Amino acid sequence: MDVAWIAVDWGTSNVRAWGIAPNGDAAFGVSSDQGMSRLARADYPAVLGELLTSEIDIDGDLLDVVICGMAGARQGWCEAPYLETPARLDDLLQYAVTPDMPPSRLRPRILPGVCQRGGNDDVMRGEETQLLGLIALDPKFEGIVCMPGTHAKWVELRDRQIKRFATAITGELFEVLSVHSVLRHSLGGEIKEDERQAGTLEGLQRGIEAPEKLTSTLFRTRAGALLSGHSPSWCAGYLSGLLIGADIGGQRDWIGNAEIPLIGGATLSRTYQAGLEMIGARSRVVDATEATLTGLRASYVA
Amino acid sequence: MDVAWIAVDWGTSNVRAWGIAPNGDAAFGVSSDQGMSRLARADYPAVLGELLTSEIDIDGDLLDVVICGMAGARQGWCEAPYLETPARLDDLLQYAVTPDMPPSRLRPRILPGVCQRGGNDDVMRGEETQLLGLIALDPKFEGIVCMPGTHAKWVELRDRQIKRFATAITGELFEVLSVHSVLRHSLGGEIKEDERQAGTLEGLQRGIEAPEKLTSTLFRTRAGALLSGHSPSWCAGYLSGLLIGADIGGQRDWIGNAEIPLIGGATLSRTYQAGLEMIGARSRVVDATEATLTGLRASYVA
Repeated sequence: MDVAWIAVDWGTSNVRAWGIAPNGDAAFGVSSDQGMSRLARADYPAVLGELLTSEIDIDGDLLDVVICGMAGARQGWCEAPYLETPARLDDLLQYAVTPDMPPSRLRPRILPGVCQRGGNDDVMRGEETQLLGLIALDPKFEGIVCMPGTHAKWVELRDRQIKRFATAITGELFEVLSVHSVLRHSLGGEIKEDERQAGTLEGLQRGIEAPEKLTSTLFRTRAGALLSGHSPSWCAGYLSGLLIGADIGGQRDWIGNAEIPLIGGATLSRTYQAGLEMIGARSRVVDATEATLTGLRASYVA
Repeated sequence: MDVAWIAVDWGTSNVRAWGIAPNGDAAFGVSSDQGMSRLARADYPAVLGELLTSEIDIDGDLLDVVICGMAGARQGWCEAPYLETPARLDDLLQYAVTPDMPPSRLRPRILPGVCQRGGNDDVMRGEETQLLGLIALDPKFEGIVCMPGTHAKWVELRDRQIKRFATAITGELFEVLSVHSVLRHSLGGEIKEDERQAGTLEGLQRGIEAPEKLTSTLFRTRAGALLSGHSPSWCAGYLSGLLIGADIGGQRDWIGNAEIPLIGGATLSRTYQAGLEMIGARSRVVDATEATLTGLRASYVA
């Protein structure tokens, strides 16, 4: 299949690239673990070339490469200054930066992230492209979007703009607490899915009920193991559910009645979905990769 | 000075011992870093002997050794089963356990911790002794006590009993987030005290205002450094203040109007004090070591 241009999602831990055919279909998809966290600025051109070498000829016509994500961070390939909220999603390509690249058929551009100033400082890189993908898939959508992940985002979209957003470090809290805190003593071992699920539901309820008590309900992970004999699988579920519940509970002031798209991994999105159900909010899961690819495509043809 | 018995606070990271004279004064005080986390069960007798060897003769009359803290944990010297809430502080010695000890003049006993069951599982070891110390210092005291630390405790004391309590992992959250999370990029370097102080006040306000949004206000540490140029000292203060503010804000439902004793380290207690002031609550700082030693003494003579 002919390749008209290249779409790239360059994250912290991984990089993924797709060859896009003239009709918009993905002609190929490749990925590697050469995310931003492993790379120095000078590494990017070679990493990009190697990633594509099995799929495209070194010689040939110039190929646009549209990149979203952490490659545009200050510590990435080339800093792509943030658009400020309210940020128009149709402006992404217009504000893309052109990083240094040795002579090659590849012509990379890196899309900007979005920031929010004025007391509620916040930043995103990559999610803005998924949000453009969301409104490309569902042009009438307006409302609140939830993007579960290491750094979960809650976003208000209106008029094809990001009006405001908040980043919750829910996933990262789970990681650092499971590995480095006293709670780790109550986790570990092989996961028994039914026990994990029971812990998740209990955690979701606790978190949603009293998000303001998170610093103390977290310790229940440990005390529950000591006193009530909860299994490591239950505790792992509880910890995850509690954090996600607190995340949902803390954002209730702007979660309305409209259906909330969840853009994220399938497992995590299902837990958010269960939590949103507990507060009577409807949601639907949007595949994160589809949102990214659709967003990159929409940015390029915009 | 004659020594009538030995008082020991055996924590996770450290152990401290005092020789108590017949008149109740501390004849000597010694300490080491041989806390529970470094010791196997069999190590305790030798560590205790070495700790005291410079201060007391190996031969002599039998000496009672009263120990509080993590030596009584399951992974400590000898498990001292928890008293359950409501727990009478005057019962501590009665429920002490006698650990294995080779022939010696030392006769150790380990005081129990306190647990809470019934949906709000929680545990303490060591703090119960400080609380006994508090009411020995101030026999009329009843009300809410705050014990800042790695695992902060909020406790309701009435009728010389622990009625209920909650553990907040505030200090540990600060530790793991400063060292292991993305927020670490915004911290580090030499602390400038005035900047740290400004960050602490901002964090306290944010945390108290919206404890339910902790998962997202935490990320402001990072976004504030990226967007508003906040210094590492400011960010360290913000993170600490935010966590303490969220801790205070989350417990407002049982912080009344009465003065709250703060039992903890001086610096941390002052931050809690500043936060409590912001919600109009009075507090006073009680020296943690004095509370521990007074509590051990009160348990022994009870």
